[in-house]
Amino acid sequence: MEKREGEGEGEEEQVVNPWTVSAKGGGKIDYDKLIDQFGCQRIDQSLVDRIHRLTSRAPHVFLRRGVFFAHRDLNEILDAHERGEKFYLYTGRGPSSEALHLGHLIPFMFTKYLQEAFKVPLVIQLTDDEKCMWKDLTVEESQRLARENAKDIIACGFDVTRTFIFSDFDYVGGAFYKNMVKVGKCVTYNKAVGIFGFTGEDHIGKISFPPVQAVPSFPSSFPHLFGGQDNLRCLIPCAIDQDPYFRMTRDVAPRIGYQKPALIESSFFPAMQGETGKMSASDPNSAIYVTDSAKEIKNKINRYAFSGGQDSIEKHRELGANLEVDIPFKYLSFFLDDDDKLEEIRKEYGAGRMLTGEVKQLLIQVLTELVERHRRARAAVTDEMVDAFMAVRPLPNMFN
Amino acid sequence: MEKREGEGEGEEEQVVNPWTVSAKGGGKIDYDKLIDQFGCQRIDQSLVDRIHRLTSRAPHVFLRRGVFFAHRDLNEILDAHERGEKFYLYTGRGPSSEALHLGHLIPFMFTKYLQEAFKVPLVIQLTDDEKCMWKDLTVEESQRLARENAKDIIACGFDVTRTFIFSDFDYVGGAFYKNMVKVGKCVTYNKAVGIFGFTGEDHIGKISFPPVQAVPSFPSSFPHLFGGQDNLRCLIPCAIDQDPYFRMTRDVAPRIGYQKPALIESSFFPAMQGETGKMSASDPNSAIYVTDSAKEIKNKINRYAFSGGQDSIEKHRELGANLEVDIPFKYLSFFLDDDDKLEEIRKEYGAGRMLTGEVKQLLIQVLTELVERHRRARAAVTDEMVDAFMAVRPLPNMFN
Repeated sequence: MEKREGEGEGEEEQVVNPWTVSAKGGGKIDYDKLIDQFGCQRIDQSLVDRIHRLTSRAPHVFLRRGVFFAHRDLNEILDAHERGEKFYLYTGRGPSSEALHLGHLIPFMFTKYLQEAFKVPLVIQLTDDEKCMWKDLTVEESQRLARENAKDIIACGFDVTRTFIFSDFDYVGGAFYKNMVKVGKCVTYNKAVGIFGFTGEDHIGKISFPPVQAVPSFPSSFPHLFGGQDNLRCLIPCAIDQDPYFRMTRDVAPRIGYQKPALIESSFFPAMQGETGKMSASDPNSAIYVTDSAKEIKNKINRYAFSGGQDSIEKHRELGANLEVDIPFKYLSFFLDDDDKLEEIRKEYGAGRMLTGEVKQLLIQVLTELVERHRRARAAVTDEMVDAFMAVRPLPNMFN
Repeated sequence: MEKREGEGEGEEEQVVNPWTVSAKGGGKIDYDKLIDQFGCQRIDQSLVDRIHRLTSRAPHVFLRRGVFFAHRDLNEILDAHERGEKFYLYTGRGPSSEALHLGHLIPFMFTKYLQEAFKVPLVIQLTDDEKCMWKDLTVEESQRLARENAKDIIACGFDVTRTFIFSDFDYVGGAFYKNMVKVGKCVTYNKAVGIFGFTGEDHIGKISFPPVQAVPSFPSSFPHLFGGQDNLRCLIPCAIDQDPYFRMTRDVAPRIGYQKPALIESSFFPAMQGETGKMSASDPNSAIYVTDSAKEIKNKINRYAFSGGQDSIEKHRELGANLEVDIPFKYLSFFLDDDDKLEEIRKEYGAGRMLTGEVKQLLIQVLTELVERHRRARAAVTDEMVDAFMAVRPLPNMFN
């Protein structure tokens, strides 16, 4: 993505951390700058080609289109995979709301692809403790939301024979807690302030949390899964706002005798109103929710999806749509799997031969199908299935 | 204890917190000042008499002689007891060393008395996580020390049908962790700095720890013991340097819907070299250890126990011993149960009719018997007994 112009003095710098995503001067997130600042690497075509080759299947649309655009040590994971070594996946979610929006599904859709492509086990952390502390939810409400969100996650199609979903309130303790203490010992308060931006008025619960999100990166936190395999590597698919946790984790890992986790990181799914960060849970029209009806999806897209088309048909025919800001086109680039079709829209819409209404029409169709498919899958998720995914149990065939 | 004289300007203030006990200008701890500063109450004779009456037995020597000298809400616990309501005891130990000294035994000897006198259940926390973080011990070594220390604790004679001993590395999780999060949410970093003196260079493990020591004050942290009895009161016998943890706990308790724990707090057992704070683990001659042989006890007391006797026999006969600084007399006041005998020594030694050598001789006899009794009791503690005390189990007869 290009650097933005007009970066005048006195404008606020962009802030990206697990709790705040805001671009400089209300513009677009500068991902190049983020990569520089965080010290991660861009995923280039050769890396995408390598994954294609190693998995013998077309890379996921999120990989082909640069949604997952940055990484740390992904090549090392692939080297290990090529040598026949195993690794595991770790992702998570903070259960702060009942209904997930499309942006929430992205890491899970992608993680499911990685699990299938590499045939590897997966741990999914539900940070109910985090949300209890940051969102001032009760313990009970956070736990209820964790279970509800688990149903949406399971609906993404994970393989129960390779997947362990856990809530922190349920699972923290034992080997996991020992690793929390080991990590906590290596991070000073000043260091945590530098990474996470804590202030003296933040409560100590928040300051205690980074080790909780760090330790699923270490196989010894899951003795029932990886007992004795302390050198197993971990790959973490996540949005790039989670990078601070794993920068900290990677810094600490060698000091406590563990492998650094590798990362594969996504950009943010843009809001309906335009690409200025993440979607807002407080504005229901800023996002499509997996609970939205077909009618709601149609209305939201027609009314709120920011268009890069020109003000008049004449001008549009002459200048074409500005695809850099056009939300219907952006959304299609996330969810329209057909590369040829997307390329055709890029050309035709960009040249003004296709109108915003037509693109929105296609998007409505794609998202209605996606949401309908998710709704059916979620309705089929029983409490017994949630219990099965969340049972602390060995997964004997997780690498097969 | 009297206020010290000569409190000149520029001298360092006394510091008493869980990690540092140092008197102003290297003198004696000013306990009156501590009571003022911490905001707890002095235990007066009427309170001792009330305990005598309620328990129908002579108050423990540590209570009669003012070793346990301060409290918070002890009267409320006794009111509840008189109404026939139940309470439970909570004490603990940070397992930082293999061998305990006499000072370490004091809270456990006293807690055993309280358990017998009131017929109440007891939880004993072994903070292996704390010592792992503060003393830079490995997780494994901290856990080993926790088990070794548990044997010394069990040797004090606790009733296995009323006592649950747990290590944090084993037990943190579930209901206990939920309470940790609830407490953590109520304490800002700035507040924790005010209470515990943390600095920005302290690691976040330390900053995370106060809730771990706080939550055994709440019955809901022990669902296997107190399930559904969320209003059960808790009484904490401890040395007064632990007060900061429980000041924080009492501040938080009503905000999360729990009872404030009551406290009964001891002064510090003086070092052999004189009453200037706690004993030092780094100087083996500063303390009598429960592992010392009869010969070692004799040598240590004869060589190192600071005497308040005069320089010459003539002067001693004339002026008498200064009992305020005399360590053999202080130690006897902790461990010689016979009030008449102690009173006789006070008079005779204080008047110069008794010599330091005679008092030391009696102390050697008392401590040799105490240590020998402890050694025998500890030798009889098997691994199975440790497992029994530490098993997460209901205690059906704990209030009978």
